[in-house]
Amino acid sequence: MSRAKAPIGGTRGFIVPIGGDGRLIRNAAILRRFIEICGGSRAHIGIILTGSATKDAGRRYERAFRDLGGDRVSALKFETRTDCEAKRNLDMLDIVDGLFLTGSDPVHLSETLGGTSMAQKIRNRNAHGMHVAGTSAGAAFLPGQMIAAGESGTTPRADIVQLAPGLGLIERLIIDQHFRHQDRLGRLLMALTYNPLAIGIGLDEDTAAFIGPDHRLQVLGSGGITIVDPSQLQHSAIHPDRRHAPVSVVGLHLDILVEGNLYDLTAHMASIRS
Amino acid sequence: MSRAKAPIGGTRGFIVPIGGDGRLIRNAAILRRFIEICGGSRAHIGIILTGSATKDAGRRYERAFRDLGGDRVSALKFETRTDCEAKRNLDMLDIVDGLFLTGSDPVHLSETLGGTSMAQKIRNRNAHGMHVAGTSAGAAFLPGQMIAAGESGTTPRADIVQLAPGLGLIERLIIDQHFRHQDRLGRLLMALTYNPLAIGIGLDEDTAAFIGPDHRLQVLGSGGITIVDPSQLQHSAIHPDRRHAPVSVVGLHLDILVEGNLYDLTAHMASIRS
Repeated sequence: MSRAKAPIGGTRGFIVPIGGDGRLIRNAAILRRFIEICGGSRAHIGIILTGSATKDAGRRYERAFRDLGGDRVSALKFETRTDCEAKRNLDMLDIVDGLFLTGSDPVHLSETLGGTSMAQKIRNRNAHGMHVAGTSAGAAFLPGQMIAAGESGTTPRADIVQLAPGLGLIERLIIDQHFRHQDRLGRLLMALTYNPLAIGIGLDEDTAAFIGPDHRLQVLGSGGITIVDPSQLQHSAIHPDRRHAPVSVVGLHLDILVEGNLYDLTAHMASIRS
Repeated sequence: MSRAKAPIGGTRGFIVPIGGDGRLIRNAAILRRFIEICGGSRAHIGIILTGSATKDAGRRYERAFRDLGGDRVSALKFETRTDCEAKRNLDMLDIVDGLFLTGSDPVHLSETLGGTSMAQKIRNRNAHGMHVAGTSAGAAFLPGQMIAAGESGTTPRADIVQLAPGLGLIERLIIDQHFRHQDRLGRLLMALTYNPLAIGIGLDEDTAAFIGPDHRLQVLGSGGITIVDPSQLQHSAIHPDRRHAPVSVVGLHLDILVEGNLYDLTAHMASIRS
């Protein structure tokens, strides 16, 4: 819905992290669903492009959205922090129903958007009904904390992950992407050891979490979502002098969810529709 | 201890799965500890070699055991099932205090040893005090069920893993090895979905689980051990016609343990010594 249709103080928009698409855009079902929640054929979608590496991706997404029936698609170029203060760009946020973030590097997103008027306005508009999706680095960037960089591997180590502030659309959530193909469980577990109040979400490629205003997440796509809940964490020990040593983490709850499954982020509870 | 020192019907020997060593034998601490429980300088260690790929490994382990103070080391060649019925080979099992299995392919171990007099005698001698360690494929082969083959990836899929009978020294345990470097969580989760009464153990390289007669496991080595307990599994759904589709698995308990940590396989409980 557009801002005009949203009541003042009304329902928050969806937040839709997507696990990336490799080199091809396979996730037509995910984009189609995003267009749907943004208003279907009347939807106006803004695509945020940052960094030269994402220009091609931006064009591909623009075409994909048009092919799927999104007639009004605007690609917005944000190459510098100055772009994120330009009135013309900020005004655009008033008229789009949904915003789509691409990005090959979460740090670049953070460096360009973080702390700007643009970031503030995205948060504000999302709180009042604008839907925000992000794929790959654009997904990791959505919450208040993000995994900026890290190593592969199943076993957590203190130095396996670097955290940085994200966009801040949602708190107590750590999102990792390209999860199935890049063996990122260890860095997600380590991020949660640093943030035990958060829930960890590992998104496979071509797989999205549609997080509704009710804080319930629904899975859509061909892969799975790995959910790690550290709220019952009994122990974790990080040795200050042995940053590369493996870290023991006891008491994690682990769910793997697939298309159609739901997860209540408030109740920490999965539910499977059969 | 040797058989002579073990009382009739006495204590079961240790079972020691090791997560592999890459190309170098780094796990001196693990081998040293194995020699210790086998009787120290008086220990007689038998090394089982199967398959041409493991001949070099066998020689390397033979040297390593000798270098670490195991004066009596015998490498036993088992290339065919006939070797596993030969009296000379079976008699060897009566005099060793510990047995060490190498192996690059668990299926080859199963094809050569499975169902032979040798396999039966190893089970019997372990039940009466002979200690048995296995590295890499030799670790996977130790329990009653083993992961014979599988694909990489974090997300479980019905066709991601092939199970086969193992040596049968311990039941209700599924062991996967080279865990950190080969992204094997998905296949371990899938194996547990097929065996929800088992506990899953993912061993990093250069890391061992010393499983005592009391069914308590202690971690030794430079990596971590991933323990997955499916006993509270609430749901898993395998679609008969969609073997490569991701599978939802809800209600797993996950612990990462490091050197010195303990896990009680009967109580399903980790304990951390600090």
